[in-house]
Amino acid sequence: MNQFCSGVWCGGFGSPEVITPVGVFRAADAPDAPPLEDGAVLPFWRGDIISRETGRGFVVEIPMKNEEGFYGFGLQFHAFNHAGRRRFMKVNSDPVTDTGESHAPVPFYVSTTGYGLLVDTFRYVTFYLGTNGAKGSSKNCTEPVKEHKEFSEQSLYALKKAKNERCVLIEIPNCEGADIYFFEGPSMLDAVRRYNLFSGGGCLPPLWALGNWYRMYGGSDQRQVLKLAEQFRESKIPVDVIGLEPGWHTHSYSCTYLWNKNLYPEPEVLMEKLNKQGYHINLWEHVFVHPLSELYEKLEEHSGDYEVWGGLVPDLADKKTQDIFGGYHRERFIDKGISGFKLDECDNSDFNPSAWSFPDLSSFPSGLDGEQMHSALGLLYQKTIEGAFRDRGLRTFGGVRSSWALAAGSPFVLYSDLYDHRQFVRALINAGFSGLLWSPEVRSCENSEDFIRRLQTVVFSPQSLLNCWRIPNPPWFQTDIAKNLAGEPMPERDSIIAITRKYLELRMRLVPYLYSSFWRYRLEGLPPVRALALDYQDDERTHAIDDQFMLGDSLLIAPVFRGEKSRSIFLPSGGWYDFWTHERFDGGRALVYDAPLDIIPVFVKSGVILPLADSTQCVEEHTLFRLTLLCFGSGEKHFTLYEDDGTSLACEEGKYNTVVLTQDAEGGIAAVRNGMEAPRYDVKEWKYVDCGILL
Amino acid sequence: MNQFCSGVWCGGFGSPEVITPVGVFRAADAPDAPPLEDGAVLPFWRGDIISRETGRGFVVEIPMKNEEGFYGFGLQFHAFNHAGRRRFMKVNSDPVTDTGESHAPVPFYVSTTGYGLLVDTFRYVTFYLGTNGAKGSSKNCTEPVKEHKEFSEQSLYALKKAKNERCVLIEIPNCEGADIYFFEGPSMLDAVRRYNLFSGGGCLPPLWALGNWYRMYGGSDQRQVLKLAEQFRESKIPVDVIGLEPGWHTHSYSCTYLWNKNLYPEPEVLMEKLNKQGYHINLWEHVFVHPLSELYEKLEEHSGDYEVWGGLVPDLADKKTQDIFGGYHRERFIDKGISGFKLDECDNSDFNPSAWSFPDLSSFPSGLDGEQMHSALGLLYQKTIEGAFRDRGLRTFGGVRSSWALAAGSPFVLYSDLYDHRQFVRALINAGFSGLLWSPEVRSCENSEDFIRRLQTVVFSPQSLLNCWRIPNPPWFQTDIAKNLAGEPMPERDSIIAITRKYLELRMRLVPYLYSSFWRYRLEGLPPVRALALDYQDDERTHAIDDQFMLGDSLLIAPVFRGEKSRSIFLPSGGWYDFWTHERFDGGRALVYDAPLDIIPVFVKSGVILPLADSTQCVEEHTLFRLTLLCFGSGEKHFTLYEDDGTSLACEEGKYNTVVLTQDAEGGIAAVRNGMEAPRYDVKEWKYVDCGILL
Repeated sequence: MNQFCSGVWCGGFGSPEVITPVGVFRAADAPDAPPLEDGAVLPFWRGDIISRETGRGFVVEIPMKNEEGFYGFGLQFHAFNHAGRRRFMKVNSDPVTDTGESHAPVPFYVSTTGYGLLVDTFRYVTFYLGTNGAKGSSKNCTEPVKEHKEFSEQSLYALKKAKNERCVLIEIPNCEGADIYFFEGPSMLDAVRRYNLFSGGGCLPPLWALGNWYRMYGGSDQRQVLKLAEQFRESKIPVDVIGLEPGWHTHSYSCTYLWNKNLYPEPEVLMEKLNKQGYHINLWEHVFVHPLSELYEKLEEHSGDYEVWGGLVPDLADKKTQDIFGGYHRERFIDKGISGFKLDECDNSDFNPSAWSFPDLSSFPSGLDGEQMHSALGLLYQKTIEGAFRDRGLRTFGGVRSSWALAAGSPFVLYSDLYDHRQFVRALINAGFSGLLWSPEVRSCENSEDFIRRLQTVVFSPQSLLNCWRIPNPPWFQTDIAKNLAGEPMPERDSIIAITRKYLELRMRLVPYLYSSFWRYRLEGLPPVRALALDYQDDERTHAIDDQFMLGDSLLIAPVFRGEKSRSIFLPSGGWYDFWTHERFDGGRALVYDAPLDIIPVFVKSGVILPLADSTQCVEEHTLFRLTLLCFGSGEKHFTLYEDDGTSLACEEGKYNTVVLTQDAEGGIAAVRNGMEAPRYDVKEWKYVDCGILL
Repeated sequence: MNQFCSGVWCGGFGSPEVITPVGVFRAADAPDAPPLEDGAVLPFWRGDIISRETGRGFVVEIPMKNEEGFYGFGLQFHAFNHAGRRRFMKVNSDPVTDTGESHAPVPFYVSTTGYGLLVDTFRYVTFYLGTNGAKGSSKNCTEPVKEHKEFSEQSLYALKKAKNERCVLIEIPNCEGADIYFFEGPSMLDAVRRYNLFSGGGCLPPLWALGNWYRMYGGSDQRQVLKLAEQFRESKIPVDVIGLEPGWHTHSYSCTYLWNKNLYPEPEVLMEKLNKQGYHINLWEHVFVHPLSELYEKLEEHSGDYEVWGGLVPDLADKKTQDIFGGYHRERFIDKGISGFKLDECDNSDFNPSAWSFPDLSSFPSGLDGEQMHSALGLLYQKTIEGAFRDRGLRTFGGVRSSWALAAGSPFVLYSDLYDHRQFVRALINAGFSGLLWSPEVRSCENSEDFIRRLQTVVFSPQSLLNCWRIPNPPWFQTDIAKNLAGEPMPERDSIIAITRKYLELRMRLVPYLYSSFWRYRLEGLPPVRALALDYQDDERTHAIDDQFMLGDSLLIAPVFRGEKSRSIFLPSGGWYDFWTHERFDGGRALVYDAPLDIIPVFVKSGVILPLADSTQCVEEHTLFRLTLLCFGSGEKHFTLYEDDGTSLACEEGKYNTVVLTQDAEGGIAAVRNGMEAPRYDVKEWKYVDCGILL
């Protein structure tokens, strides 16, 4: 194994393929990832790894401890610790069962023994995480034979447990080998950070993208969009981004990327009016090019050999195709005021009876086949669109339905057409293990309670998104689709709108805190949303918690689901403060928390400074955040705010300020700003919560 | 393409694999299938078929008409006509979504254009049935562009339809070619019959196996089994086969194949007592061999390289392994009075979080890899067990969880752990397209209504099975599991037991009719359960009917589902008689039929003789069926009964009689028996229903 960079090792097994994620997504001239402080040796040697070629592909065996846990594998809805399971890394738009398939599978995991592993391939890799012992390994098993006495499914499954869990088996199909990258710990969080830094560091969204997003009803026309946008401002509902759904195209399945002038007669007027009110605009599209698109002829020779919905499948693994596709977007949309795109349908539809998307057997001019392209397409599409913004020196932030390995730096948030709130929370937490962002968007709601519970989750996520493509009126007016279409309000709408405003405003208050978290994602590889098992790995009680998460360094969020009035919460050791009441709780234990409809349990870690801004309706170019700095618990505390223009790529050249906030053990405070530009933060007041300081 | 036998063509594409279904399951010295009368040319030429090798395997393109329909693909729960879908032929124990995966996928389809197609491989084949046009095929599409006006999922999916459905794409992974067999029509039924005859003809169950089956509570001991068996006889509940579930093994996951003497201290006594009362005994098992099994040492060198549940995976593709495994069963069980086995867990668990079964990357001494073995194992297991019975000159009939191509001759009925009644009926109908038998077994029931509705379906299926492994008391006593375990009866049990008895007795009355249907399966390849689309292909209204079926030649069954009190039924053209009331209905139309709980709609075709026996408690060696012959409608009619010893293989050497029943147009009747042995049928009376005959 070769040391690739500090704490990252590469093992070549067999004859690796030519086109792989590291080659495609990690530029050859990418700088070495900044080293982390505490490198740790891997828990095994190269010699402990067995590999072989088979008639199906290539197999690698990695040593495993019986009690070892595994996290990651991209966007996973159904499972958390994957030990004892089989994970099939296949892109799938309807991952309704726990197979590992997902919109964004990632052939990367972190192990509780303190390392991360990436298989560098676009193939549909299968991981067997201790599911099967080798022949004979149970022969001399000393475990006493258990009689089959109880007759339920549960007792049967208990009996069925594999007797020997000896190794991780990795099968990479249709190839003769692969490079495997190993990321050192010593903790899982270290391995995750090394992986993110190796990917180029986490993405940094534009500042406005951390506000609230609202996707309009698909049947809206220009007048209706403008009307609702005005209403938001009038009724003080903070929204930063307006999203338009398929109807803006003249033809949407496949796409023409041409404004439908029946619905949007004057798109320039629409954009100008919205921009003037401080809105950014995001356009829905997918990558399949309709014959009536102006792109069609240019892309025909740069496309795969099968159509999807009668449209071309552009070969985005080819730089020229990226230029054609990205250039069109740059000139037609970005230069005219569009701030981002929602990249739909770039996953795959194996579980979907409508069987869209291109076959795995497709071939593309770049040399990728359909299998590889399915894995690569989501991230290639992101890079293409991001590239068009970069050409103009701009950052973007958008939505995407698929991703793969090495995506940490890509400014897109995943979403899906599945709607289970618990699964959404699990996916949010899982995404953080492998360089992905996920939005548990508010979309299908059973009722107003469900709406509020989902809203409470989404404002604490990477993208605070309300997707209202099915309903012409906002969900706080009516959650039932038929009644919403009929314009019939919910009786409880007044109380619901008050709670909605409270949470959308809270999101705005968190923008500076979130922006700092993303800066740390970028600079240190630290994911903004993390499982408790990452921050508190030493406490094994955190290892199975898939319904609570850390947002940034200071906040622990514990979502509540429809039908619940209270929930059990595990607080890791240390002190914690109720975000709402500032009541102190000792950690290292579980507690039951009463959560009426307007409350989602949120805890602040003791020993932190939490910056909260005054809420604004949106983030504009010169928005000055007026901050209240809450200091929780005793002792010295620090927090670093990041300050830049919020929209350009200048940040990548070091053009940003830090504002280092300090509160010493005696209550002394300081805010040290290192830069020269106009400030973005104005400290309104410092507040002490349980700091042991007499004021 | 070479003509393989009458009406069957073989095309070799690329370099076919060495181990394939035709090689393994169709003996080299198998006789040519008996020719069907009306051979028809295939709807395309060899030159119309394109094939190519790829980095993933081998691809074949078959021409397709836009309106063409496709049926088959083995046991399919979710879809019926597969046109426009993707079918992934992967063995899967939890096929919860419509991907083509199944316990028993079969890479065989029949097309409405009048041919059948079999891909001769154990690989996980994918069929794309007109899902994607080739690049450019939509370029000059004259279809007007549809604006996206309505905003629901349905309208979106309508827009998403592929614009061009031009060909069937077949991808066979991990190989360099394949033989493809084409079965001529002219009708789909002809193609299905040719496929079944090519497979060796349909199976012929022992006569007793057509009675009712009852699988005992898993926790039962010897005393409890005997007690319930006695109760059946005392209370006149006709049961032929008693099934024992996992508890009879000393260890069941993996299996020891040793009697658990704590529960069954004297298995010989159990068998003797049950046999004496006319019962046959069926034992549950699976193929994974526990270290404490006597088979372990003998099989170790004949097994795959990974364990399942700590047990060996025997390489049943090796004749020697079959001999060891089958020989043990022959000596230990068959020779001691066991009549059959339930072969569980021989499928695969990709969708199952417990991730049992061997990895696809496994290898076996015979040269099969895990992928191929998963496809082959179900049928190899059936052949091994059937072979052990054949060694003793005996027929058997059993249950199995997996199968593959060319299974028509195998005397096993598929079952699954999924329980949706509608899906069960669809699976029952679909199974008949590709040489499979399926039991919509009565197992999990919501309530007594659900129990009766399921019972009404299962008595009209290849295996009339009540699987009561979770409940110590019969379901007609209590359907709720917890209450059943507590011994608490349902209030409505008296009415439920009366309906139960009526249907179990009806099953017994149908045994001669069913036996004739199976004989025709064997001799003519005609499946005993068939979609209406097979019998009435000319009427396109039958092409989507997946909730009505033909049982034998004369009966049309239309199951009713829980919550329904009536249902719509389509009667194909011709006359039909209500089985219960003998009321006449004109066909060629749909009608609404009232079905109170004790009625499942059953129609008898006009122009048939339907033999109904007096009910008996079971079928014994010398059971004489006392027949009532019902003649429906005017004109001359025939029916052929088949007569043999009911249990041995002598039938295969022509040792059987036919009894040809005739009723001429004037009401004259004849029963011409061609044989010499003791008769099995005694005609009690002839009855005329609407025959236009004055008596």
